[in-house]
Amino acid sequence: MSAVPSTASHGNDAPVLASRSGGVLTLTLNRPAQFNALSAELMAAMQIELDRAAADPAVRVVVVAAAGKAFCAGHDLREMRADPSLDYYQKLFAQCSRMMMTLQRMPQPVIARVHGIATAAGCQLVAMCDLAVAAEGARFAVSGVNLGLFCSTPSVALSRNLGRKQAFEMLVTGEFIDAWAAKEKGLVNAVVAPDHLDAEIGRIAASICAKPAAAIAAGKGLFYRQLEMGIDAAYQLAGQTMACNMMDESALEGVQAFIEKRAPDWK
Amino acid sequence: MSAVPSTASHGNDAPVLASRSGGVLTLTLNRPAQFNALSAELMAAMQIELDRAAADPAVRVVVVAAAGKAFCAGHDLREMRADPSLDYYQKLFAQCSRMMMTLQRMPQPVIARVHGIATAAGCQLVAMCDLAVAAEGARFAVSGVNLGLFCSTPSVALSRNLGRKQAFEMLVTGEFIDAWAAKEKGLVNAVVAPDHLDAEIGRIAASICAKPAAAIAAGKGLFYRQLEMGIDAAYQLAGQTMACNMMDESALEGVQAFIEKRAPDWK
Amino acid sequence: MSAVPSTASHGNDAPVLASRSGGVLTLTLNRPAQFNALSAELMAAMQIELDRAAADPAVRVVVVAAAGKAFCAGHDLREMRADPSLDYYQKLFAQCSRMMMTLQRMPQPVIARVHGIATAAGCQLVAMCDLAVAAEGARFAVSGVNLGLFCSTPSVALSRNLGRKQAFEMLVTGEFIDAWAAKEKGLVNAVVAPDHLDAEIGRIAASICAKPAAAIAAGKGLFYRQLEMGIDAAYQLAGQTMACNMMDESALEGVQAFIEKRAPDWK
Repeated sequence: MSAVPSTASHGNDAPVLASRSGGVLTLTLNRPAQFNALSAELMAAMQIELDRAAADPAVRVVVVAAAGKAFCAGHDLREMRADPSLDYYQKLFAQCSRMMMTLQRMPQPVIARVHGIATAAGCQLVAMCDLAVAAEGARFAVSGVNLGLFCSTPSVALSRNLGRKQAFEMLVTGEFIDAWAAKEKGLVNAVVAPDHLDAEIGRIAASICAKPAAAIAAGKGLFYRQLEMGIDAAYQLAGQTMACNMMDESALEGVQAFIEKRAPDWK
Repeated sequence: MSAVPSTASHGNDAPVLASRSGGVLTLTLNRPAQFNALSAELMAAMQIELDRAAADPAVRVVVVAAAGKAFCAGHDLREMRADPSLDYYQKLFAQCSRMMMTLQRMPQPVIARVHGIATAAGCQLVAMCDLAVAAEGARFAVSGVNLGLFCSTPSVALSRNLGRKQAFEMLVTGEFIDAWAAKEKGLVNAVVAPDHLDAEIGRIAASICAKPAAAIAAGKGLFYRQLEMGIDAAYQLAGQTMACNMMDESALEGVQAFIEKRAPDWK
Repeated sequence: MSAVPSTASHGNDAPVLASRSGGVLTLTLNRPAQFNALSAELMAAMQIELDRAAADPAVRVVVVAAAGKAFCAGHDLREMRADPSLDYYQKLFAQCSRMMMTLQRMPQPVIARVHGIATAAGCQLVAMCDLAVAAEGARFAVSGVNLGLFCSTPSVALSRNLGRKQAFEMLVTGEFIDAWAAKEKGLVNAVVAPDHLDAEIGRIAASICAKPAAAIAAGKGLFYRQLEMGIDAAYQLAGQTMACNMMDESALEGVQAFIEKRAPDWK
């Protein structure tokens, strides 16, 4: 794998490092001394990287990773506390929510690569990614309530991954769950030994890269839209999406190849 | 059990075989050489059987079963590929969605009897049944993406059975999960040894047949309608449904029998 | 712990007993000879207690417990059957639904303390509490269908806790699940030995009492409101809620204390 540093990362002290290997773009949260707390600067850098990736057909999968001992400890509390005002906090959470929603709106699947702790908005980041793989030893909490700040925006993501009693318990107690509990509850897809984390992420990413981009993009968009619809409307949109998908050259070739018992020729 | 062949199945080569035993109607997908692929003809036959069953008060439970080695391999790709047009595919997926929704709309509970593979629209068929029992060894995938055709319509059903990360993983990787994983994720109710499959289905069917049809029908209808409502509206509709149910002769007798510590006399 | 009997419980034969210990209000269903069936009188008493608690800033957590061998066997069938009319049943289920919704609407977290059986509206009561802890040996069923009365109103709560196939199975078969299955399916948060039940409830309650009331109240309200919204609207409301929460003195102090590596001084 020849990692190509993105032009967007300004050296090793940028808040987000970007590197490409084939179709896989890895965005690494890079404030290890602050447990990758989501400062306004880091979120702005992340937004730029995600917007750029969304528009880049060469990017097929995005991996959100983290430098240092933790995945992400949520918002940067020191920065947040410096100059409090309602207006400031509204803008801060709006910036964060926009970044989180970009993960879901972009055409490529996004995989969280989680090790260490993922707390508050860091736990939300895991929940908002399409897929997540955790190292054994990873731990998750929505711990704002411990400081008197209920994790309201994280609850939006968490409650769309976990059952409601399980999500509510985490939100009002602020307690950690371990990686295995996170898998059982639906917050992550898989738990692996730390030294197998890259291999497992690579395996999933390779599986996605082997499929036509158009099908994945249309499917991801449909997936989240239909989740918010009644089932009749969902089927109408899905049927339309699938009919259009089937008329795509890649699908016509893929199905033909299946019939002829050969590998598809997707150039 | 004296199985009564339905008038609707035209001999052993019909695409869907129907047989009745007491209140249990078994509809068997019968294209074993094609892994029970859902050809337009099969779906039309299934629609006829389901519509007939929905209107037949003697049918209390429907079992969807399959002949041969597989449960169902999804759409008939050979047929689908023969004469591609957007109009054709729109009609095909609309036909399929209508058949799938009939399973949910009909008054009787529908149980999927799953063995072998259930892929793409075959996996969707399992997800759309009210209940599903799988034989050990059964495997499930939404594998259209492997051919460049994202399983969009199956995603509607799958995402209403599984957590979203778990559903998304199956949809973008196209990989199989085994029967035990399907149970853990919520796609099936139970996993049993292959030679206990009929006994387990029979046990559930008998349990349903022992209850008054009116209560089951009203309850099933309410169940899916209230799922798409806010909780206040859901409670209003449910309260109204339950008040009407309670005024039914069967419920009045059932409750009276309970008070008198005797079996209800439901003639 | 010095339990303070509430003025609302009129001696030991009141249908609901209320006792306070610190910030924890325990409401005990007290019709043990009737397995705590929800008579109109019991529901009215419960409504009064819940409304009073909702308005009392000294109450930080509510525990719903039960006297005798069972948690709750649902509606009082003898009372229900005495003088049947559609109007009566509509009012009865409306009274019950209002009481159930009060659990969700009140600002304090509500924990179900479950032992013995929880059936029909008793199972619904568990599902409607924000959290639930069950003793090993507890069993759960929505068993109205056994009497010809489908548990329609309980289905509203149950289907918002469990996967839909799992909920549907319980509703149409009326069969019991044990405490471990209830945990696996999402109906309860934890299962403990009977003689650890109070300790586990106490542990969770203490964790909640240690957090500022304003954050818990705002967070609980937001949690249920955003669950019924599309994700964009959910994030807007959550961001606004969290910005207001952050401007609260408790949160400003909590975050400041975190920065200064000291315990918050919440007087």
